[in-house]
Amino acid sequence: MRIETIRAYRVVQPFVGGAYNMSKGRSADAFDSLIVGMTSNTGLTGWGEMAPLGNFYSAAFPAGTRAGVPEIAPHLIGHDPRGLASIGRLMDTVFKGHPYIKSALDMACWDLLGKATGLPVCVLMGGRFGESIRLYRAISQQAPDEMAKKVAQYHEQGYTRFQLKVGGDPDTDIERIGAGPAMLRPTARLVADANTGWTQH
Amino acid sequence: MRIETIRAYRVVQPFVGGAYNMSKGRSADAFDSLIVGMTSNTGLTGWGEMAPLGNFYSAAFPAGTRAGVPEIAPHLIGHDPRGLASIGRLMDTVFKGHPYIKSALDMACWDLLGKATGLPVCVLMGGRFGESIRLYRAISQQAPDEMAKKVAQYHEQGYTRFQLKVGGDPDTDIERIGAGPAMLRPTARLVADANTGWTQH
Amino acid sequence: MRIETIRAYRVVQPFVGGAYNMSKGRSADAFDSLIVGMTSNTGLTGWGEMAPLGNFYSAAFPAGTRAGVPEIAPHLIGHDPRGLASIGRLMDTVFKGHPYIKSALDMACWDLLGKATGLPVCVLMGGRFGESIRLYRAISQQAPDEMAKKVAQYHEQGYTRFQLKVGGDPDTDIERIGAGPAMLRPTARLVADANTGWTQH
Amino acid sequence: MRIETIRAYRVVQPFVGGAYNMSKGRSADAFDSLIVGMTSNTGLTGWGEMAPLGNFYSAAFPAGTRAGVPEIAPHLIGHDPRGLASIGRLMDTVFKGHPYIKSALDMACWDLLGKATGLPVCVLMGGRFGESIRLYRAISQQAPDEMAKKVAQYHEQGYTRFQLKVGGDPDTDIERIGAGPAMLRPTARLVADANTGWTQH
Amino acid sequence: MRIETIRAYRVVQPFVGGAYNMSKGRSADAFDSLIVGMTSNTGLTGWGEMAPLGNFYSAAFPAGTRAGVPEIAPHLIGHDPRGLASIGRLMDTVFKGHPYIKSALDMACWDLLGKATGLPVCVLMGGRFGESIRLYRAISQQAPDEMAKKVAQYHEQGYTRFQLKVGGDPDTDIERIGAGPAMLRPTARLVADANTGWTQH
Amino acid sequence: MRIETIRAYRVVQPFVGGAYNMSKGRSADAFDSLIVGMTSNTGLTGWGEMAPLGNFYSAAFPAGTRAGVPEIAPHLIGHDPRGLASIGRLMDTVFKGHPYIKSALDMACWDLLGKATGLPVCVLMGGRFGESIRLYRAISQQAPDEMAKKVAQYHEQGYTRFQLKVGGDPDTDIERIGAGPAMLRPTARLVADANTGWTQH
Amino acid sequence: MRIETIRAYRVVQPFVGGAYNMSKGRSADAFDSLIVGMTSNTGLTGWGEMAPLGNFYSAAFPAGTRAGVPEIAPHLIGHDPRGLASIGRLMDTVFKGHPYIKSALDMACWDLLGKATGLPVCVLMGGRFGESIRLYRAISQQAPDEMAKKVAQYHEQGYTRFQLKVGGDPDTDIERIGAGPAMLRPTARLVADANTGWTQH
Amino acid sequence: MRIETIRAYRVVQPFVGGAYNMSKGRSADAFDSLIVGMTSNTGLTGWGEMAPLGNFYSAAFPAGTRAGVPEIAPHLIGHDPRGLASIGRLMDTVFKGHPYIKSALDMACWDLLGKATGLPVCVLMGGRFGESIRLYRAISQQAPDEMAKKVAQYHEQGYTRFQLKVGGDPDTDIERIGAGPAMLRPTARLVADANTGWTQH
Repeated sequence: MRIETIRAYRVVQPFVGGAYNMSKGRSADAFDSLIVGMTSNTGLTGWGEMAPLGNFYSAAFPAGTRAGVPEIAPHLIGHDPRGLASIGRLMDTVFKGHPYIKSALDMACWDLLGKATGLPVCVLMGGRFGESIRLYRAISQQAPDEMAKKVAQYHEQGYTRFQLKVGGDPDTDIERIGAGPAMLRPTARLVADANTGWTQH
Repeated sequence: MRIETIRAYRVVQPFVGGAYNMSKGRSADAFDSLIVGMTSNTGLTGWGEMAPLGNFYSAAFPAGTRAGVPEIAPHLIGHDPRGLASIGRLMDTVFKGHPYIKSALDMACWDLLGKATGLPVCVLMGGRFGESIRLYRAISQQAPDEMAKKVAQYHEQGYTRFQLKVGGDPDTDIERIGAGPAMLRPTARLVADANTGWTQH
Repeated sequence: MRIETIRAYRVVQPFVGGAYNMSKGRSADAFDSLIVGMTSNTGLTGWGEMAPLGNFYSAAFPAGTRAGVPEIAPHLIGHDPRGLASIGRLMDTVFKGHPYIKSALDMACWDLLGKATGLPVCVLMGGRFGESIRLYRAISQQAPDEMAKKVAQYHEQGYTRFQLKVGGDPDTDIERIGAGPAMLRPTARLVADANTGWTQH
Repeated sequence: MRIETIRAYRVVQPFVGGAYNMSKGRSADAFDSLIVGMTSNTGLTGWGEMAPLGNFYSAAFPAGTRAGVPEIAPHLIGHDPRGLASIGRLMDTVFKGHPYIKSALDMACWDLLGKATGLPVCVLMGGRFGESIRLYRAISQQAPDEMAKKVAQYHEQGYTRFQLKVGGDPDTDIERIGAGPAMLRPTARLVADANTGWTQH
Repeated sequence: MRIETIRAYRVVQPFVGGAYNMSKGRSADAFDSLIVGMTSNTGLTGWGEMAPLGNFYSAAFPAGTRAGVPEIAPHLIGHDPRGLASIGRLMDTVFKGHPYIKSALDMACWDLLGKATGLPVCVLMGGRFGESIRLYRAISQQAPDEMAKKVAQYHEQGYTRFQLKVGGDPDTDIERIGAGPAMLRPTARLVADANTGWTQH
Repeated sequence: MRIETIRAYRVVQPFVGGAYNMSKGRSADAFDSLIVGMTSNTGLTGWGEMAPLGNFYSAAFPAGTRAGVPEIAPHLIGHDPRGLASIGRLMDTVFKGHPYIKSALDMACWDLLGKATGLPVCVLMGGRFGESIRLYRAISQQAPDEMAKKVAQYHEQGYTRFQLKVGGDPDTDIERIGAGPAMLRPTARLVADANTGWTQH
Repeated sequence: MRIETIRAYRVVQPFVGGAYNMSKGRSADAFDSLIVGMTSNTGLTGWGEMAPLGNFYSAAFPAGTRAGVPEIAPHLIGHDPRGLASIGRLMDTVFKGHPYIKSALDMACWDLLGKATGLPVCVLMGGRFGESIRLYRAISQQAPDEMAKKVAQYHEQGYTRFQLKVGGDPDTDIERIGAGPAMLRPTARLVADANTGWTQH
Repeated sequence: MRIETIRAYRVVQPFVGGAYNMSKGRSADAFDSLIVGMTSNTGLTGWGEMAPLGNFYSAAFPAGTRAGVPEIAPHLIGHDPRGLASIGRLMDTVFKGHPYIKSALDMACWDLLGKATGLPVCVLMGGRFGESIRLYRAISQQAPDEMAKKVAQYHEQGYTRFQLKVGGDPDTDIERIGAGPAMLRPTARLVADANTGWTQH
């Protein structure tokens, strides 16, 4: 099996709950993602995606993904997408660093391997370890009572793990954290994440 | 896909070149191996093998493999052999330690995954990185001139990497090591392995 | 004195209190042990025993002991069983690793040394340091109230050190641990052992 | 002083000596650079440049620079370009990582500070420490005699420090390195750089 | 630009609040400082100051500053004061150690650079990060109630960060520290500094 | 078995070869040893010995042994000499440190254990590992040619391992070391010991 | 000045308060000390003393001191007692280790230096740092109420620092420690010393 | 004994051999030293000296010594000069750091102690360890042949240890070092000191 064509599509996916705010005024209201479609000589197409959270969250940015995939993709044409370590080593030789750019291409190779073998990728990665997972929700930074209201609402819907976005004025942060736990059922958990918005003191 | 049957066969494979000797009088003249055949509900059979070098070479012994495989095998019946990490975790829970015993079963699962997907296992492990490999040969401990003769003979056949079994009387060992290099072509390599037969002094 | 004969007997010893359960569903209801009888040219016989707790508790399994003792035993014939370090070094040369297999043979040598010299082994190991020891009891994993009942019962019989087998559902584990201390007299001690059934969180 | 406009120009600068080759077949024949012009409200324009060596040399690639500068630039409008640490902290907040992208903008700020104060940037960076520097030259990977010829030629022109690009077939590399030193005058120096093309052995 | 003249003036500046006392009877009632005026060939003069706290507070003493500046100053005549790293390296070559002496000269160079470029020094050092700062006050060691009175008084004036000089009799120190916090508004902070007047016990 | 009587005898054993000299003028011409006889209630007597090399060689001195044994001995009366770890712990409780004093008593207990069991002590300590040992000889510090003559003489008698006592004037030491190796047969070994008579330089 | 004569006297000094008991049944009722008188050619005599606490408290024992001083003393005759480092180096060369034995001789040298110069030794050791010291008292192990009574009694006499000898039965030790603090005035301190009579658990 | 008066004299002592040059153009032609005379109430005077090698050699400079001694001296009046540790602690409290300034005062105290006791200071410091010392000579940086000539000349006079001042042009340094050893007798030693004039490469 050989890679014959690689196409990439930009897809902007607005957040259902509106702007996602964290400390230092950083905010995003959509995933600006890149969807990679990799087609083999056997007619199968594998799909991969890279969706950074704005430019500020990690050393990964949407425009960089769009710039980098076209640099790497031509080097993969003609190679067997099912040899994943071999593809990874090739990408590292022709393009140094930037794992977030390679991620969408790697994912598409896994998808091709799954489709070629007729197996879900989770089986090829070692097998499925369970049938369900707990729901987890990060709560965008807002006024404390708005955030408490959201925790209650999601808890109602079945979420049992919460992350509060804090990292602003310390007094307000204390209110944000204080409001949550009381309203949770015993086995639920709530943490606060300041995203570098706090100093050590 | 489910594992339905696991069978194991003892196969004693005598060494072509006779006894394989190393330091401290340790010696073996065959691989006393166990071949595992794992059959799935789809009728496919995967094969694995465990072949320890006598009882003395590593913490793996033939009789132990034969004793252990029947302890672990029943726990695997009914599980999907293609989920390799899941199978590994299950084996570690029901049977602590002894990786050499689990090795043959693990290999049979990989083989089933390969057959089920119609792919060589090397592709599923990350792809093939080359088309050929250098030939390497360990030379059983004997009189220095016997060993030198063997190095020459194998070199003739195409071997270019050699390991001499030393670890006996120091003077004889010096002769063993000294005889080899002169007869090798420039790019060949020769090392000596005392297998704990030397002290630090 | 020379070792002349080594015989080994499999002895399955059911637990008085029934199944012994620990975390992850691991359970055993007997010691499947191997008893080694080592007879010397002087007519004395020394005894040793190896009794692993199922296959899952440590890297020691009953079938492995039965497989390994016959591999090692022939090498000991003709050697002086009283030279314990010398016997140990010999066993390590002919058979790498697997100390649990060597344990029964080592114990039989100690027993022969004791019998040959007419001394209890504890004297040969450095002397007896006391006349009595505290009784210690591990409580198999069950419903919390069952376990509490057993602690009380054994305490009544004179046990003053307890280990509770936990490592299941956290809430149930909290009940298991909570029930015990209240019923113990001041100098008694109780610990809980999850046997890797808990994660760090 | 405030930043009013930021413009960026792509400039491809072919290498005078043709392709620049290093180990693993990596090669470039031009700097594909981005020139940033930053204009202040006082009418001054500062210039900066980012010129990665292909995609493979470091975790910096030309297309990424072109993608990233437009993401960061709008955040700088209206800020004082002369406060360099303050500009740096702002860039790090709105855009995580990727120092090579920020480099051209930072350089333009330094240039504006120099022009605004009428001083060469080297003075603002601590002063000039000398009046001349030694010439240094990297020699692209080629046949050993080609490389030796180039070393001689550059030495003639005044270069006294050389770096040979090696990292291919070991025997050829030995020839590459061996040829150089003999032809150099006493105070000249020559090093070899395999650019990860050699293994530890 | 070249340094043409360096003059230094001793200026004793009595403390508004009288003697400043710390542990072990150490006390000062003025800054005995040296003001350096550095004039360039362009007619500009930069100013620097070194004001040690008595002889006992750090390895810097007023008389030493007065002794050292005349040793270093002549070496700077004729050099460009704007090349600050270059000036620093020169001072380190002709005069080893004693950074407190070099400090006033360094400051004067920064001042000249600022005046020559028409920029406040804070811009040249990276930009201004804020428009205001919190007021901080060290309270000289006295009777506990005197110190508490001063904290209250300065708090009234707008100070919100306090340092109490302790390090005397432990019981008195406990009173000193105990009195403060109660009278502060929620966001204020108070620390105690024993200036090596306490032992580890 | 109980210890009933402990007697100790001083025995001065002059060295056959006369004074034994090492660096810094340190010298001894005899072992001034203490022989301990320990008699049990069964009528057996075990023997031990402590023979320090003068006062200067290690933190053990003859007069100290003679002073210490009578301090410890009374505490051992009535104890079982065969429980060696138990005897050791008792000696450490009643008498802190000074292992060289306890050594003769410990040795006598081992001897009693051997006699009581009818076994050579080497068997009780783990068995005999060989039938012969190489002869080793330290050569007292003298003029280089005297020392060389002794090496030759002892070599003739069968010694194959030598230690030269050096640590005097460096030039003489060089002569001492230089003279030896030439006269030795291939498998012999010679080392030099300065006994702290050399500095690091 | 030269050392001419060294004499040593054994002096047994019974404890005023009777037996001094610590953990593990260790007990002493006197200091069995050695007093050294060192006379110089100028007719001055310096005095030193070594008084170990039984044989069990540290690696120093009375009989060893009596045995060792006569071994070292002859080497000091004729040397200048005022050169203390020189005397120390000499003692270390002729007699390895055993600092407690050298202590009495060293002390006598200091005393001679003081007498020869007409100065108290504390001046020669760096000067006196105060005019008084706090009284400290170790309380021999007894029944808890006996010990509490002693603490009270010594406190009355002016002691303000106490050490309780514990290290027996834990419950009794808790009583010992509990009784003390309540009866002490605020600035007094009390610690407990088990002298290795407790295990880590 | 009490300190009554402290006087200090500046004494410039020109070097017999003219300028003393080291790397980086650093040079001195005299010791610009401070001589301290400390007089006690008993009429004795102790002398101390501080003589830094220019301003550049260590963090000690002549003018600083002259500035610092008057700051510290008044605090010593009335104290006993013989209590050297006590004097040292006092100096450290009233004056932080600058050990080179305290050195002359400390030396004067030692001298007073010696005079008061009628002993040479070396006796009070532990005794004299020998009767002679080897002569050592640093050779000021000059042309290689000049330096070689000086080594020869001093060797003639009895010097056997030499230090060459290097740290200039590497080729010249090589000549400097090369010239020396040949002309020295076997037991002499010669080292080179670049005084930070060389980089690691």
